[in-house]
Amino acid sequence: MAATSPQRITLIGLGTIGMSMAALHLERSNTTVDVFDTRPDLKDHVLNTLPNFLGQGSRTTGFDPQRSASLVKSFIESGRLNIHNSLNTACASATIVQEQGPENIAFKESLWAEVESLAPPSAHLWTSTSGIAASLQQGSMRDKTRLLVVHPFNPPHTMPLLEIVPGPETASERVDFAREYFSVQGSRHRPVVIRKEIPGFVGNRLAFALFREACHLVQEDVVSAKDLDNILMASLGPRWAGNGVFESYQQGGGEGGIGAFIEKLSSTMQEVWDGLGKVNVLGDEETGWKDKVISQVNDTYGTLTPERLHEKEERLKDFVEVQGKTYGDSHKE
Amino acid sequence: MAATSPQRITLIGLGTIGMSMAALHLERSNTTVDVFDTRPDLKDHVLNTLPNFLGQGSRTTGFDPQRSASLVKSFIESGRLNIHNSLNTACASATIVQEQGPENIAFKESLWAEVESLAPPSAHLWTSTSGIAASLQQGSMRDKTRLLVVHPFNPPHTMPLLEIVPGPETASERVDFAREYFSVQGSRHRPVVIRKEIPGFVGNRLAFALFREACHLVQEDVVSAKDLDNILMASLGPRWAGNGVFESYQQGGGEGGIGAFIEKLSSTMQEVWDGLGKVNVLGDEETGWKDKVISQVNDTYGTLTPERLHEKEERLKDFVEVQGKTYGDSHKE
Repeated sequence: MAATSPQRITLIGLGTIGMSMAALHLERSNTTVDVFDTRPDLKDHVLNTLPNFLGQGSRTTGFDPQRSASLVKSFIESGRLNIHNSLNTACASATIVQEQGPENIAFKESLWAEVESLAPPSAHLWTSTSGIAASLQQGSMRDKTRLLVVHPFNPPHTMPLLEIVPGPETASERVDFAREYFSVQGSRHRPVVIRKEIPGFVGNRLAFALFREACHLVQEDVVSAKDLDNILMASLGPRWAGNGVFESYQQGGGEGGIGAFIEKLSSTMQEVWDGLGKVNVLGDEETGWKDKVISQVNDTYGTLTPERLHEKEERLKDFVEVQGKTYGDSHKE
Repeated sequence: MAATSPQRITLIGLGTIGMSMAALHLERSNTTVDVFDTRPDLKDHVLNTLPNFLGQGSRTTGFDPQRSASLVKSFIESGRLNIHNSLNTACASATIVQEQGPENIAFKESLWAEVESLAPPSAHLWTSTSGIAASLQQGSMRDKTRLLVVHPFNPPHTMPLLEIVPGPETASERVDFAREYFSVQGSRHRPVVIRKEIPGFVGNRLAFALFREACHLVQEDVVSAKDLDNILMASLGPRWAGNGVFESYQQGGGEGGIGAFIEKLSSTMQEVWDGLGKVNVLGDEETGWKDKVISQVNDTYGTLTPERLHEKEERLKDFVEVQGKTYGDSHKE
């Protein structure tokens, strides 16, 4: 069945990511969403929380809590959104089963064995894990070709990236289906297939590489946590929102492109690489930075208020909108 | 003299950065700019190139080459822009001397000794270097308290960041002046003072930390250069355009903030840190990635056309504009 056909998606685990995923799927016109979570107040939780993730269409008039709440109720009344207290009924008619449960291999391994016995054999099986590769989750499955990682970035209903990471046994048509599902016309999402299973996949590896150096620079008193954030927002953030790191340096090298850039910067670049911080988060060595970083970050930002979180999300949507803009004749290229 | 008072800025070196800097300074209403470069066609070069860096005010009606060209001519006629073939006349009345010459210690050391003998003793001395600390440039100066790094990000007239990096001997009032100069009301620039001299300062250290891992992932065939750029643009770019890395993780940890985030992700984070790529740009070891990365980047982007560069710059301006937007009541915080 084509990824553009009507789909029935089962979501297992309705935390923040699950709720955002529900909004993402419900935003498409031809989906039915079945949600399952072990929490006893699931229906109230959905009614109270899901409205905050909906309402993308009302940007010009602002977020309207009442309208979003009625939207959720109308989804339930029309049967587009179904709330389940049993995994069995939740999975029974699925074309896609997507889990965002605890990050625990044993949990996921046993979940997929159970899902396999409950869902139709054609259903696609997606894990939203940020750290546990598909090949580590499939130990108890009979058919290991169905499972793959579909790793969203927070918040999934707004952030364009989905990292699709097949395991060595995942069937290529399962990979194609996932990519096509998120590439549907009009979607703001941009799926990318990762060729090899690797810890942290690609997005978080890049983020953690930068974060390690950020923590080192704060630990060494080169800059405060707040000033480091300001530096990032005033330079690399907007640069990389418009161009990846490779295209930026292709430009930076002028006529000679990235080769000339690397050549010209080589001595500074090697000096930086040789001196990159080696802080650690586990173990006993070089973990002393944590107290300093955590206390500076808490002092600077405290608890983020709902207003601040709302502002962050609206701004993110504006950046994504600018990414989709065309300028002059450049879209004809 | 206060940084908000009228300033007379001498620019030494009129390459791309120098030209962009000229546009930055001319955009302020109370500046006079003196430019010096050893190229014999300096006047033609300024008349032909500077118009491309001006015209910020005409965003709604689009870039108008004729209007920008007349603007440059009117700056020259009114005496706000002066083109010099002698360093002596260029520096004679400066309140600020800013150099963006070759990245070469010997060049800069001898330049500053000469500038010191030509410019008024009160003039502020700024180097746009991306790699040579002030303390390495001041060897032949009598008064070492005047020199500091003011490192822009490309392109300076659009990119908000200026890294202000004093050396151990730089006077604190010189640092304050530079920060205040770029903090003037209505400016899109955001200066940040770095507390210690360190190779690459902060912005490029963070960029190079991420770039090293990016090159490693391409070398290992985890992802193509093009897909890696797409991943960055679809996730970390827009995220860091709106929030620094620390605030993002403060949010990622929910109620527990960044401390909870680090705790929750610690095993994946440490695994990523332990496995970060160790490619090098100099020496014989692990430099084999260069051919693969350079050829993939050239194949993907080729020579960036003027239309593409214009699009990139316009999009960057739009991101910076979104950064300055207020949402709901959040600006009252």
